[in-house]
Amino acid sequence: MPYILRLNAGKQEARQEKVADQDILMAGRGLIAAILNREVNPLCHPLSGENKLVLAPGLFAGTMAPSFGRISVGGKSPLTYGIKEANAGGTAAQKLDRLGIRAVVIEGKPEDHQFYIVKIDGKGCEFVPVQDMAHKKNYDLAAALQARFGEKVGIISIGPCGEERVSAATVAVTDQDGRPTRHAARGGLGAVMGAKGIKAIVIDDSDTPRVDLKDSQAFQNGVKNLVEVIKADKGSAALNRALGTPGVIPFVTKVGSMPTNNYRAGSFDQAENFFGKVIKETNTQRGGKMHGCMPGCIVQCSIVFNDPQGHHLTSALEYETLAMMGSNLGIGDLDAVARIDRRCDDLGIDTIEIGSAIAQAMEAGLVSSGDPESVLGALDEIEKGTPFGRILGQGAAVTARVFGLERVPAVLGQAIPAHDPRACKPVGVTYATSAMGADHTAGIDYRDSLSKEGQVKKSKEAQIFMATMDTVGYCMLALPAKAPALIGILAELLNARYGLSLSGEEVLGLGIKTIREELAFNRAAGLDPGVDRLPGFLKTEVLPPQGVVFDVPREEIEAIWEDLQDRP
Amino acid sequence: MPYILRLNAGKQEARQEKVADQDILMAGRGLIAAILNREVNPLCHPLSGENKLVLAPGLFAGTMAPSFGRISVGGKSPLTYGIKEANAGGTAAQKLDRLGIRAVVIEGKPEDHQFYIVKIDGKGCEFVPVQDMAHKKNYDLAAALQARFGEKVGIISIGPCGEERVSAATVAVTDQDGRPTRHAARGGLGAVMGAKGIKAIVIDDSDTPRVDLKDSQAFQNGVKNLVEVIKADKGSAALNRALGTPGVIPFVTKVGSMPTNNYRAGSFDQAENFFGKVIKETNTQRGGKMHGCMPGCIVQCSIVFNDPQGHHLTSALEYETLAMMGSNLGIGDLDAVARIDRRCDDLGIDTIEIGSAIAQAMEAGLVSSGDPESVLGALDEIEKGTPFGRILGQGAAVTARVFGLERVPAVLGQAIPAHDPRACKPVGVTYATSAMGADHTAGIDYRDSLSKEGQVKKSKEAQIFMATMDTVGYCMLALPAKAPALIGILAELLNARYGLSLSGEEVLGLGIKTIREELAFNRAAGLDPGVDRLPGFLKTEVLPPQGVVFDVPREEIEAIWEDLQDRP
Repeated sequence: MPYILRLNAGKQEARQEKVADQDILMAGRGLIAAILNREVNPLCHPLSGENKLVLAPGLFAGTMAPSFGRISVGGKSPLTYGIKEANAGGTAAQKLDRLGIRAVVIEGKPEDHQFYIVKIDGKGCEFVPVQDMAHKKNYDLAAALQARFGEKVGIISIGPCGEERVSAATVAVTDQDGRPTRHAARGGLGAVMGAKGIKAIVIDDSDTPRVDLKDSQAFQNGVKNLVEVIKADKGSAALNRALGTPGVIPFVTKVGSMPTNNYRAGSFDQAENFFGKVIKETNTQRGGKMHGCMPGCIVQCSIVFNDPQGHHLTSALEYETLAMMGSNLGIGDLDAVARIDRRCDDLGIDTIEIGSAIAQAMEAGLVSSGDPESVLGALDEIEKGTPFGRILGQGAAVTARVFGLERVPAVLGQAIPAHDPRACKPVGVTYATSAMGADHTAGIDYRDSLSKEGQVKKSKEAQIFMATMDTVGYCMLALPAKAPALIGILAELLNARYGLSLSGEEVLGLGIKTIREELAFNRAAGLDPGVDRLPGFLKTEVLPPQGVVFDVPREEIEAIWEDLQDRP
Repeated sequence: MPYILRLNAGKQEARQEKVADQDILMAGRGLIAAILNREVNPLCHPLSGENKLVLAPGLFAGTMAPSFGRISVGGKSPLTYGIKEANAGGTAAQKLDRLGIRAVVIEGKPEDHQFYIVKIDGKGCEFVPVQDMAHKKNYDLAAALQARFGEKVGIISIGPCGEERVSAATVAVTDQDGRPTRHAARGGLGAVMGAKGIKAIVIDDSDTPRVDLKDSQAFQNGVKNLVEVIKADKGSAALNRALGTPGVIPFVTKVGSMPTNNYRAGSFDQAENFFGKVIKETNTQRGGKMHGCMPGCIVQCSIVFNDPQGHHLTSALEYETLAMMGSNLGIGDLDAVARIDRRCDDLGIDTIEIGSAIAQAMEAGLVSSGDPESVLGALDEIEKGTPFGRILGQGAAVTARVFGLERVPAVLGQAIPAHDPRACKPVGVTYATSAMGADHTAGIDYRDSLSKEGQVKKSKEAQIFMATMDTVGYCMLALPAKAPALIGILAELLNARYGLSLSGEEVLGLGIKTIREELAFNRAAGLDPGVDRLPGFLKTEVLPPQGVVFDVPREEIEAIWEDLQDRP
């Protein structure tokens, strides 16, 4: 049976806790929701010792099944003050699962504000004083840790922004190249890790056996079916496979959902510079590549991007960053966005949140629109921790608040990512109603996305589906267009690994249970989930080029969780 | 019948709306709650045109009954994001009532960000472009308006901080001396007024007749009874009458509820410098005085404080400011606090909120503890609108958030005022449960205040009582120790002015209705009122000298509004 590794960050002690039989399907986002609901005071301060940080692989991370290596990171968010789960790829989840670890739960905090490295391997767990690793940025830190603990370790770390408890701080995870490029970026969980005095977790799974499979043959069948579905896909998995996430830019530009000039348009006149094909051509010429961030991935959408001199500049260059640090700031220079992305990864901050915060600072006249140097200057301020930098580090909503701006592109204090809800209405419903705040990964759907009809149903289905995926640990970038086909395969894999006989419906029940627990946590935290929190300007300000507003009726939106919300 | 003056701030137009018969008892805080519930989208941005700013006298402002001249100012708060009512003395309410105005409701906002002066008199209402009054501080502004419109006008104004939409900005009201010293200070309503482009409202009630009284003889009887009760009082009204609000300092120092060194103690070793008697002696020697901020007041608790050279320095020097800008910042210099108070009045910012924010900045190492010059330097930053100044201007909770501090002395984002809930537990229950956030004026009670028993009941009664007082417009500083005796007199006065036959219980019904509407607004704004929002550190950090924590059971607290909350 797997176990939960409990770390007492106050006393630098670790203990193992067996997962009970009845909890065998609790993993990833679902496990986070359950632990937070059971163990954390919903009204606690997110940076206090009362909060817990949970790092949880999904249900198949250590197997050879592809695209299941996401690691969910969760806790009470210092950005939203509600429950938060953010997940990332990289190698950490696979290694934890191979070590039999269902989750690492970090509790308490050190009274003396010291930082530690936590080393986990087959022999156990050890707290190492941080010493010369303190204040290191993620790239240097990863290199130093690899030099010390070996090249093959997986690393979960925070940059200086996490140490400084910046609300937009990320938790970084090393990829197959050993670089700290995969980020559980949203909701400021890096600040929670920082408050707990953990600079990095180093995972060494050498000499661990293969993970147990109850029915190895059936499992291999399931894997075969999964690979076939992905390879046969002609939808988003195929697009990601060909071009990475920037492959979607011609489409979102046409639909008009790519935030541009502080959410004033949905299409950017320099968007072609960011088209997936353009990036691929440029990068190939420079000797860059695409790879899978986690071993075994067959989508391999991660763009490992080189500078004009052919040196590695950043991985992965994603659509979200190209929009939030590019079009939304009036910047059309691909290399500039790549430099900004590298800088954010190194500092350990969310490109979505910080991009949106910088757009607010542009509105306040403190950063120049369309000027990458001005944006890099703002990142300098964040690094130095000046008052202006600290404001930006709190994200878009606080930045707007501090500068007296009323056009606040955030829900539950979390910035709206690169899918404008006026042109993608299902995701608007998700932003308005997810316990996560504005988060496209909580449930997005582009089918007939400009209509106001039927979008609540689509959002709800997508949210339940994604909560299921985040619980089993499957990567949303590997979702085939016919995503529901996955559910049957998931049942097959679950039954094979754990000796169960679940139906597809029962698999989706994992997502429903997760959402139910998340809503309960937020309700107890005083954040009523039955309220349409989408900012008002999206309902009145017409978005070009489609000329749309967000007009899904509020009554419909506020009824979305009626059957899943347990009112007191 | 009185009327409501509706100002369209977008078009600079005014219209009158008769108060309906059935609404004759709606005034002050109660009227604000009703208007916000009926007319304002609870999810709107507080600085948007959707919000409304309501300025509402109570039910007797223009009569000769003493201490009824409070003006309630209300709207959705840019500090708490919930409903907010803050009230002040001064002459404005009396003049509005004499003009037959039950409330001024400011709607919309100018698209061009221009500022206006609104002139109200017996002939009507006029918008005057602000021109040379722009950016003026409150004292200069009041003088300039008096030079232009006459010495006897009442003025409601915002300082530069209101213009700049700072969340801790106040609405200032001129006192009997024509000085802008009475502030509806809490919840940032000055920012709402600023967002609506109204720099000041000038009220000229010359040549208006006496207000109507249905039964003049009975009213005079009621007034006589009221005066007798106040004069016979041996409790807080008597103390305020003798020494002003600093009269309470020997008591709160002993109980241990006077915030000291960022809420780390409840008693200050230099508190004697602030004792009411000391201030009175010093001020008398300097030629200062005490007066009533509103004509007819018989308590006259307002300290008009002179500097050592005998020049007017500030009015009124209140306990809250002495604590939040004095003891809580480690400052024991009376003249320094008076200078800080003058500066805050002039800028138009809340001394409680800014004092608490500066304490957070001290925690972050950016302001020196015990150093008035450092505090004045911080106020300079607020005036200049630097990033640091803008952070402070957002109040204690945002300042803590920006600097990554977890000891956040605020409820609903509003700073805890100068009554530490660990030593005054009834007010702690009020902070935790009032729709207003942390606000001692919403209901305070010092009887047996260190015990954890029975405090929810006391808080609830105090909250209902204060909601009643704020609706009729009665000043809490004139409350006799035997406050319930007032209710009968209130019934007498109401019946005499309006020709009714209300019982005392029905009078308290005004407060109950008000609270019910406020809770409904906050619930619809997504701020569940059934949640104990008191910050965690108050429950764990022991407060000297009494060695107490806040320990009123959460279940009891969260049940407080069970009978008054209409759940959907």
